[in-house]
Amino acid sequence: MATFTLASWATNLTYANLTAPVVDAAVKSLYNWAGCAIGGMAQAAPQIALNTSTAAGFGGPPTSGILGLNGTSADAQVAAFVNGIASHVDDYDDTHLAVTIHPTGVVASALLAVAEARSSASSALSPVSGPEFLTAFVAGVEAELKLGLSVYPEHYDVGWHITSTTGSVGAAVAVGKLLGLDTQHLQHAIGIASTQVVGMQAFFGSDTKSFHIGRATQGGMLAALLARGGYTSSPTALEDKYGWLHVVSTRENATATFAELGRGTWEIERNTFKPYPCGIVMHPIIDGAIQLRNETLEQGKDVESIAKIDLRVNPEVLVLTGQTDPQTGLQGKFSIYHAAAVGLLYGAATPAQFTDQVVLNETVVSMRKLVNVTTDDSVAEDQAYVTLTFSDGSTMEKFVEHAIGSLANPLTVEDLKTKFLDQASRQIGSARAAKAYDAFTSIGNLTDVGKLSTLF
Amino acid sequence: MATFTLASWATNLTYANLTAPVVDAAVKSLYNWAGCAIGGMAQAAPQIALNTSTAAGFGGPPTSGILGLNGTSADAQVAAFVNGIASHVDDYDDTHLAVTIHPTGVVASALLAVAEARSSASSALSPVSGPEFLTAFVAGVEAELKLGLSVYPEHYDVGWHITSTTGSVGAAVAVGKLLGLDTQHLQHAIGIASTQVVGMQAFFGSDTKSFHIGRATQGGMLAALLARGGYTSSPTALEDKYGWLHVVSTRENATATFAELGRGTWEIERNTFKPYPCGIVMHPIIDGAIQLRNETLEQGKDVESIAKIDLRVNPEVLVLTGQTDPQTGLQGKFSIYHAAAVGLLYGAATPAQFTDQVVLNETVVSMRKLVNVTTDDSVAEDQAYVTLTFSDGSTMEKFVEHAIGSLANPLTVEDLKTKFLDQASRQIGSARAAKAYDAFTSIGNLTDVGKLSTLF
Repeated sequence: MATFTLASWATNLTYANLTAPVVDAAVKSLYNWAGCAIGGMAQAAPQIALNTSTAAGFGGPPTSGILGLNGTSADAQVAAFVNGIASHVDDYDDTHLAVTIHPTGVVASALLAVAEARSSASSALSPVSGPEFLTAFVAGVEAELKLGLSVYPEHYDVGWHITSTTGSVGAAVAVGKLLGLDTQHLQHAIGIASTQVVGMQAFFGSDTKSFHIGRATQGGMLAALLARGGYTSSPTALEDKYGWLHVVSTRENATATFAELGRGTWEIERNTFKPYPCGIVMHPIIDGAIQLRNETLEQGKDVESIAKIDLRVNPEVLVLTGQTDPQTGLQGKFSIYHAAAVGLLYGAATPAQFTDQVVLNETVVSMRKLVNVTTDDSVAEDQAYVTLTFSDGSTMEKFVEHAIGSLANPLTVEDLKTKFLDQASRQIGSARAAKAYDAFTSIGNLTDVGKLSTLF
Repeated sequence: MATFTLASWATNLTYANLTAPVVDAAVKSLYNWAGCAIGGMAQAAPQIALNTSTAAGFGGPPTSGILGLNGTSADAQVAAFVNGIASHVDDYDDTHLAVTIHPTGVVASALLAVAEARSSASSALSPVSGPEFLTAFVAGVEAELKLGLSVYPEHYDVGWHITSTTGSVGAAVAVGKLLGLDTQHLQHAIGIASTQVVGMQAFFGSDTKSFHIGRATQGGMLAALLARGGYTSSPTALEDKYGWLHVVSTRENATATFAELGRGTWEIERNTFKPYPCGIVMHPIIDGAIQLRNETLEQGKDVESIAKIDLRVNPEVLVLTGQTDPQTGLQGKFSIYHAAAVGLLYGAATPAQFTDQVVLNETVVSMRKLVNVTTDDSVAEDQAYVTLTFSDGSTMEKFVEHAIGSLANPLTVEDLKTKFLDQASRQIGSARAAKAYDAFTSIGNLTDVGKLSTLF
């Protein structure tokens, strides 16, 4: 029943079903994603992905924008691929903490590219309105998050990158919804998406991590398009004995989880936004380090007089971000040692602190070597203890109860605006960044979301 | 070491390393695949795949041929996708029985499309010669088969479609070899391919089964192209704690298996070719049924006087092909009941016996209902017992020791030619089929494999 339940719920969902907090969370998720996708284009991974597709001649007529490039378009599958990679490459995108899924990247990258293709001159279909777009987006996000919750943590603990493995199903649901598939065709789309399982944790710290997001956008989009064309799959794809739930997990709770769709908790309301472009488990340490830097300076001390840095953290921190000696900016995002060092040295952890240059900087390397990490089950994932010992023997301690950006301590609308403008300005300049902010924050009011990229 | 060992072996492989039996097996594999890809274009699945890609505007400039369509080309990723699907859609392609992998489809579909793109007017690279093509092909096939052997049967038993899950790695190795990647870049390509795990057994009996082959061609091709462009992955992708071998299997023997590459057994020499377009476990039953039909007629009896059909088979037969009441041609390929019925009624099991029409034919349906299946562990997978009981009470029994097409009873060169011409003639006419046969059987002598499709 799981596949049918999901497909049936999604096909029946209307904009009127979305509560105001759901719409608010959806819009925030979308503009936070757009800022990440625009800013992320500065990185090598999305550029190589675009250049490779172009050089290989894989692009059809351009219909859909590359968000971070001025006026550059590609066909929907290439645009979705590149935007998907760009939106995740800085590890700065959103997070549903209960399931460690970054929910917007895969779904939104697929959806915007398809909406733009539909708005292009050659399309015979009507344009996609803001409410239509938001409804399809919420359908896709709820689908991937409920699917993820039904197999978490087993599926994640085996080593799957749960954002992309569930994301392709979310993208298929969202794009299928936009295409107006009926329940049966959407079941086929879910099946075709589910059999493409992309993403393993072995690739965290390399370009392939963000490739997962880009590839899952394409897989979900292709699934919906094929299903519309009559391509058959299995109506019981997810729950089949040899289907997704059993093959990539050891349990099958999806039927029960999907029964909760649209009732009680909307998962998108539990989405959170990162203040720092790196693994979310590192955030409480960064908060603590920045606060301690400020207090150190206030007390007239120098951070260069720090002799020892003790961190007490949740055990998951070392599992995910235990790299002691990162060599690249990307590896720095998976080093709690680097996180503590830059928080103390720069009082900030923006993309500028996760470049190759900063990771290899001698002062940063020296500071990293002072860091000692203890794990403690009683410390929650959004908590941390940071203790500094100075060369004069004095100490300073900070307990972070809820990291900035956590559900209990979320970024404000102002924080989100500052983040967006900072990311986007560096890539497309402050004037266009401001216009892009206006366009994405008002996405729900547009009559043709496919024209969104022309607004900035 | 597994990823390095594989990449290093593949980059160092030369045509001079290939023994005569290896080259012979490679050429047979390729022309058997080409016949399947040409004939398979008659089915809906590859047509929908092509139409969907075209309608969505996903095709770049056409460089690479759709084998079963007269003069139709597409970009390399679309052509590889469609040819991959077409080559598997009839379940008529090759099989490495020890690991139930159909080895040629994914690798050859990717490789030919890339060779054709390289031969196109816009390419700056030199054309691909027959020996180069065969060397890359063998590298890819050995890679996927050794990888499969290292995790068989656990990986298969969980429900993965092992042909596509290993195939994308094989395609990445083959295309990477053709692109001249060094060992380090090929390690990255293997990583990017391995993180795209496509194919579950839930989809056997639907269009999505052949989609797996098409999608894996694209995944492997894209991986090699991205790696050439500098996209990074993990040099220990396969053996990493959260990499392919551990995430999709419960054991990691690949380092030992890869150490055997090019020494001792070349896996491609163990490749076999199907006489019937359906699940290979059904073949001994079809052999027995056809032989019994002939004997029935020789004895002046009528097959309509059969009252009961008893089959004794290996237990795997009912696991894979236990559908008692198929409704489509595709489902008929997964019904041992249908297989026995058409063998007895038509004395043949070609694509013509696996159409929707024949599956729903009343005489066939009645004959299927007479079939009773018993499983027996002592019956090997290429063996079967068939017993007929006639309305007059008389019986007739047949034991098939080794099915036609098995390693012990392989198709002859004449059989392969007949099969190719039968498949290809129905799709492209007998004159072009004969030319295609000449072209593919002499692939090793071509100076530009990219021009192969212009020869027929």
